[in-house]
Amino acid sequence: MAKQLVECVPNFSEGRRADVIEAIVEPFRRHKGCGLLDYRADQDHNRLVVSLAGSPDPLQEALLEAARIAVEHINMAEHRGGHPRIGAVDVIPFVPLQNITMERCVSLAREFGKRYHEATGIPVYYYEEAALNPDRRDLEVIRKGQYEGLKTEINRPDRHPDVGAPRLHPTAGATVIGARKSLIAFNVNLGTQDLNIAKAIAKAVRKSSGGLAHVKAIGLAIEARGCVQVSLNIVDCERNPLYRVLELIRTEAGRWGVSVVETEVCGMVPSAAMLDSLAYYLQLAGFRPDQVLELRLLHSLTEQDE
Amino acid sequence: MAKQLVECVPNFSEGRRADVIEAIVEPFRRHKGCGLLDYRADQDHNRLVVSLAGSPDPLQEALLEAARIAVEHINMAEHRGGHPRIGAVDVIPFVPLQNITMERCVSLAREFGKRYHEATGIPVYYYEEAALNPDRRDLEVIRKGQYEGLKTEINRPDRHPDVGAPRLHPTAGATVIGARKSLIAFNVNLGTQDLNIAKAIAKAVRKSSGGLAHVKAIGLAIEARGCVQVSLNIVDCERNPLYRVLELIRTEAGRWGVSVVETEVCGMVPSAAMLDSLAYYLQLAGFRPDQVLELRLLHSLTEQDE
Repeated sequence: MAKQLVECVPNFSEGRRADVIEAIVEPFRRHKGCGLLDYRADQDHNRLVVSLAGSPDPLQEALLEAARIAVEHINMAEHRGGHPRIGAVDVIPFVPLQNITMERCVSLAREFGKRYHEATGIPVYYYEEAALNPDRRDLEVIRKGQYEGLKTEINRPDRHPDVGAPRLHPTAGATVIGARKSLIAFNVNLGTQDLNIAKAIAKAVRKSSGGLAHVKAIGLAIEARGCVQVSLNIVDCERNPLYRVLELIRTEAGRWGVSVVETEVCGMVPSAAMLDSLAYYLQLAGFRPDQVLELRLLHSLTEQDE
Repeated sequence: MAKQLVECVPNFSEGRRADVIEAIVEPFRRHKGCGLLDYRADQDHNRLVVSLAGSPDPLQEALLEAARIAVEHINMAEHRGGHPRIGAVDVIPFVPLQNITMERCVSLAREFGKRYHEATGIPVYYYEEAALNPDRRDLEVIRKGQYEGLKTEINRPDRHPDVGAPRLHPTAGATVIGARKSLIAFNVNLGTQDLNIAKAIAKAVRKSSGGLAHVKAIGLAIEARGCVQVSLNIVDCERNPLYRVLELIRTEAGRWGVSVVETEVCGMVPSAAMLDSLAYYLQLAGFRPDQVLELRLLHSLTEQDE
């Protein structure tokens, strides 16, 4: 049987200092079993996203080491950046990928959350499938007001962490840990500098304001490029495919005569999501993922292992 | 080092009788080393395309067995179908896929051509990289007039086969064997029954009439669906990407108010071709194929073998 694979996508609040970024990523390179796939630093967001697909034990070892380095170098009191955040290690989601259930990822997240707090002293919030109560599933709810807001509100009972005393780590803030399905991080850059337009479009398309059920979105300014961005998480790309989200954004932007300049997919994306959107644009009928040469070869290789 | 892989895409002139199709495909299933990826029978074309990616020896064994079965069941004197053809086993291309050079595939094609003729008595024409002279590289040149035309013209010196006497096999016709780069077989169905429109569009986009340098195209009637089709081979999908070809066809069809109803990719396609076209439609910047989860996992798996 093919081995257990867990996807893990830790986000750190450092996207500008190359030496700090490399130091954080180094444990993921060194621990081969944690399966470093990709890492992407965004200067405007001031954020680092690391994509891993590995085994639970090496993943946790590497995460603890990387966390220590992040805590050592990142001071949330000084941190500025376009992307909402509450900690130096901002969020650690575990995602079932192969031969592992969501239930197992939930217990993994909760066990790791305790180890993590013991090792770093950072308070932990459980989210998504690992949330201890349904009102605390959403990252946006836990993260409300960001680091600065949480600092003042953490005393409120509804904002107490799930692990640790109700007090932020003085420089590292708090960390959100959980288990969820795979999502696609998709950014759409618009040909305008007007942040209000990006915010309006984000509001039009996201679930929380009455838009598509599986889309989270915010409008951000991307100073390095002199444009604005709708930054999205698509949490179910079968129900809300990439092309549909993009074309909806394009339609909305037309209201102000604004065009889509370019898009980015950040981190990993399942092949099915890509092929589904391509089938839309090419009007492809009857196409099977197994017709993609490399996917078919992967299939044969993994069959041989069984 | 990862093993040698040759892609092979034999085309047979049977797309209607399911029992004959299965009998032809059976040797490819049985010889595991020939790596059966896909097979597709088209009733209108009356043609079977089998996609293989395997090792040279099992490939040749399976090809000879399948050829014997095709010869046993297919009578070219009775064969009718939309797609141009000269034989029961119409064409056998070898394509270098992994750890094998084009030169090796050329010698493979030529050695196999001789074995094939000895086993079946069918005359063989070498094409593309395996052609013995530059005027005989193109399949269209060798196939001119199809089975019926070749029957009368095979005596002409410029139409003599490369292997065997200048005489068609009485029921199996002739076979074209060669080596070439990967190509994409792409069909575009149009919302009209007017075959002249499909033919005009094929003429506008293909190399031989002054169109895109790496595109071959013909217009066909697809009776089963009550529409017409531009049936294409894209022989260099980096220089003539899928999206560009489709949009050019769409533009041409607009002249007559005709729309593209659907498209098909037949057989295998490299992931790079799919991602390149998706990057066009989604306006994706900086996307790396390694961001596709399954491609990255394949990469890791094959690295481990080395």
